[in-house]
Amino acid sequence: MKKEYVTRQIAKTKKKNYENYVVTGIWHGLNSLDYKIITQQYVYRGDNKYALTDLFFPQLDMHVEIDEEHHITEENQLNDKVREKDIINITGHDILRIDCSKSLEEIDLQIDEVLLKIKEKRMELGKKFEVWDPEKETNPETYIKKGYISVEDDVAFHKIVDAINCFGVDYDGFQRGGCPHPKQEGVLLWFPKLYKNKLWDNKISDDEKTIYEKSTKKSEVISHINGVISGEYHQRIVFARVKNSLGIIMYRFKGKYQLNIERSEEEEQLVWERVSKQVKTYE
Amino acid sequence: MKKEYVTRQIAKTKKKNYENYVVTGIWHGLNSLDYKIITQQYVYRGDNKYALTDLFFPQLDMHVEIDEEHHITEENQLNDKVREKDIINITGHDILRIDCSKSLEEIDLQIDEVLLKIKEKRMELGKKFEVWDPEKETNPETYIKKGYISVEDDVAFHKIVDAINCFGVDYDGFQRGGCPHPKQEGVLLWFPKLYKNKLWDNKISDDEKTIYEKSTKKSEVISHINGVISGEYHQRIVFARVKNSLGIIMYRFKGKYQLNIERSEEEEQLVWERVSKQVKTYE
Repeated sequence: MKKEYVTRQIAKTKKKNYENYVVTGIWHGLNSLDYKIITQQYVYRGDNKYALTDLFFPQLDMHVEIDEEHHITEENQLNDKVREKDIINITGHDILRIDCSKSLEEIDLQIDEVLLKIKEKRMELGKKFEVWDPEKETNPETYIKKGYISVEDDVAFHKIVDAINCFGVDYDGFQRGGCPHPKQEGVLLWFPKLYKNKLWDNKISDDEKTIYEKSTKKSEVISHINGVISGEYHQRIVFARVKNSLGIIMYRFKGKYQLNIERSEEEEQLVWERVSKQVKTYE
Repeated sequence: MKKEYVTRQIAKTKKKNYENYVVTGIWHGLNSLDYKIITQQYVYRGDNKYALTDLFFPQLDMHVEIDEEHHITEENQLNDKVREKDIINITGHDILRIDCSKSLEEIDLQIDEVLLKIKEKRMELGKKFEVWDPEKETNPETYIKKGYISVEDDVAFHKIVDAINCFGVDYDGFQRGGCPHPKQEGVLLWFPKLYKNKLWDNKISDDEKTIYEKSTKKSEVISHINGVISGEYHQRIVFARVKNSLGIIMYRFKGKYQLNIERSEEEEQLVWERVSKQVKTYE
């Protein structure tokens, strides 16, 4: 399992001339299966700018950027295309840079520095550092034991049913886009595409504090808004449908959102405002 | 220079799922620019069989094979296509294997074993080990100082003129397929394609002891044979035109060959038989 995952992550490092060299240098230098790596992680950088970081260590909140020429141009081109990608919040993350304009010896030295910083960060984290366990991180049991799901932990599930089973049920399958919270009245578990698609003209604000929802069929916009406003579910726990770095569909936790009725009526679209970055889980 | 070379060699490791993982593991594990690597080196394996070895250390005469499924089938498919490639003689070389059906931990352990064997081999060679110097290995001066060029050293030049300048001259350029030996009468320095091409239907035997040469124009076959037989050059020092592992044209030393007049007349093609794997160089 780790074998296929790691080799596939490494196989994606082909965008820049020295990316594969540096990423494999760091991976082999670590010489440990304790660390998860994600290559080409989409991140939001503020000011409506998105970027791919070349190598991300989710357990350490640490990114490695492999700098070559034309890098800045590439970043700008990304901005309009990233919406369906798996975007993570990097506030407070460390970003290390490797300058590939240097000689091979100097690149190797920079790799050694990154390795040192990884080990320091792990030391700092102490018992808070959790050894990489691919099965555990997408298993509802992990979050049930923990007692909560938090945006800070970059949680994503492979299946909708895995998200639902964090809230006190044990279903085998679930296919619809929304499911009533098994334990909390008035709360819907929601699994939307947060970008424009065939049925919905949805979007999420860059700071992820607001989600906008609207039918793509003009004749249904108002009846849909009124239906939700007059309905019983005015809070939603959101797991957005995204493609992860391997191109696999996942459902990433975004927080708990509250319907703003006044804004929804004014703007002629449903306006959901985040009220919590963390939600309680249930046995 | 080493930087571009090494990263390009590594960039070619995409044929097998785990090839890039293993090759980069060995490269980064060595952590030294003393070693030259060649990925996807064509080798002759006897019985009319050719293969690509995944990683070759020319200074150590050592190859690493990265074993996955379907490997044998691939090898067989190669046999008919390799003629214009740069084929080296691997008699007496070490071939190490890495079994990629194992877990990632076990693959990493096998990489460590290869690293150990590389260091042992270097120790064994002692002063005979020459640190990788890209400029030196294709520089005529290297072989002039050495006093000879040998098939055992897998010598190849970027330009025809570099080969010619090993024999007592200092030309700036040379474009034709053959040049009289500046110091030895009756000897031609020859730079042929040893596979069928537009002008020549040439081939070299699998053991490289015999070269066959014939015009592709039927009307000229006999006059060409008679011309060479009645001419003054009955010995040829051969540098075959090949594509190296980066797809670059090079001229690889194959040895000194003697025209067998009797066989040439009988077989209606020129038959050149190797008389030496080593030739003298000149200041």
